[in-house]
Amino acid sequence: MDIVLIGSGNVASHLARVLYAAKHQILQVYSRTIDNAHILAKEVNADSIDELQQIDVQADLYILSIKDDAMAEVVEQMPDVNGLVVHTAGSVSVDVLSRFKNYGVLYPFQTFIKSAELQFDTIPILVEANTTANASLLMRLGNELSKRVLQASSEQRGALHISAVFACNFVNHMYRLGEDVLKESGLPFELLHPLIKETANKVLRMSPSVAQTGPASRNDQQIIQKHLNQLEGQEETQQIYRILTDSIVKHNE
Amino acid sequence: MDIVLIGSGNVASHLARVLYAAKHQILQVYSRTIDNAHILAKEVNADSIDELQQIDVQADLYILSIKDDAMAEVVEQMPDVNGLVVHTAGSVSVDVLSRFKNYGVLYPFQTFIKSAELQFDTIPILVEANTTANASLLMRLGNELSKRVLQASSEQRGALHISAVFACNFVNHMYRLGEDVLKESGLPFELLHPLIKETANKVLRMSPSVAQTGPASRNDQQIIQKHLNQLEGQEETQQIYRILTDSIVKHNE
Repeated sequence: MDIVLIGSGNVASHLARVLYAAKHQILQVYSRTIDNAHILAKEVNADSIDELQQIDVQADLYILSIKDDAMAEVVEQMPDVNGLVVHTAGSVSVDVLSRFKNYGVLYPFQTFIKSAELQFDTIPILVEANTTANASLLMRLGNELSKRVLQASSEQRGALHISAVFACNFVNHMYRLGEDVLKESGLPFELLHPLIKETANKVLRMSPSVAQTGPASRNDQQIIQKHLNQLEGQEETQQIYRILTDSIVKHNE
Repeated sequence: MDIVLIGSGNVASHLARVLYAAKHQILQVYSRTIDNAHILAKEVNADSIDELQQIDVQADLYILSIKDDAMAEVVEQMPDVNGLVVHTAGSVSVDVLSRFKNYGVLYPFQTFIKSAELQFDTIPILVEANTTANASLLMRLGNELSKRVLQASSEQRGALHISAVFACNFVNHMYRLGEDVLKESGLPFELLHPLIKETANKVLRMSPSVAQTGPASRNDQQIIQKHLNQLEGQEETQQIYRILTDSIVKHNE
């Protein structure tokens, strides 16, 4: 397929590379900042553009991989095209693209950092489209890139995104608060590495509801109180410790 | 060294095996239940005892690997010894052993997960002692067992335990809340597996403060509000979403 990529961020970069590797033709990479467009475009042998009016209207597929809040404006300014227009966002309804004739969503469900090497074929891809034919086309494309492709409604995608906020963003924030506590005591974050690995590996084998351990899980009030006392002065961390402990206790009731 | 092990549980068993493998002599294994003492003693070619008065007072090292709340009583009932007496607990001060002439802590920072395939030499060991000479002795011993041995005060050990609550127990609870949200939408938890792996792997390479992504990290209020709306009716999950989002926003300021 002849593809135009609108965006040059993390998701756009990863998608560009796997699509290019799968022998699709990336015609253009658009970014508001031409230098960013250029860096990615060079990698996948495409042209770089920084005006939406420059978009090639003959492409088969247009992938919008941009910030959610920029979506509406970019959609409005894009030229009319016949090809399939998709976005890659978890929490944006497919309807934002309804001014086009053919539209849909291709949502690769993973946390993306530009530099990090990813095994793209293990990443679930969620697909939605305005017609059965477009959905089939996206399913086929998805299956070229990943072993796990499924159709999901905008609402299910929203739920998946929320669950990702918990299992990724909030998890990372827990790591960070743990790092802060260690820093306060002059200890290196690396001490947590074996624990972090084992905690993640465990829920690949069993449900997190079974995997739960720790003072909150045992409702060990003596240790909980000791920890809260030691967190005196780190008010925010202390508050989060208290709320999450309560939540674990409640879940175990 | 000639070593007496007081306790026959998970930590005691792992320690006994690695000390025995490192050519130390395990003289005795004590347990209140003689059968438990016997099982472990047999493995490491030691005598089994179930009376604290039977403890060999000529040993070089006494390792107390027992439940936190049994510690004070066992210490009281032990005979006077000249050798170094240590416990292996994370949240117990070294001072609990101050009736002895030589005392300290040898804390293997485990994942709290029973696993037969525990690679002991990757487990950090935290060491504390009442004198520099005793600390040196424990550091030397620790270095025989693990690649990561460091001196840490009782307070630092407490901080490490708190950080473990965040990086393990609270992380697992985030997985669980994510699972709950997916269940509500009829989606399988397995969709989160790649994300969970990648999120953990990422912080083995970089600080979590650098690894943070997601709507809170971008302070994307539109998505945040959308997620909060979709969580209407799941009050507790909604509250935790709000608090952790605020915390991430604050950390990025």
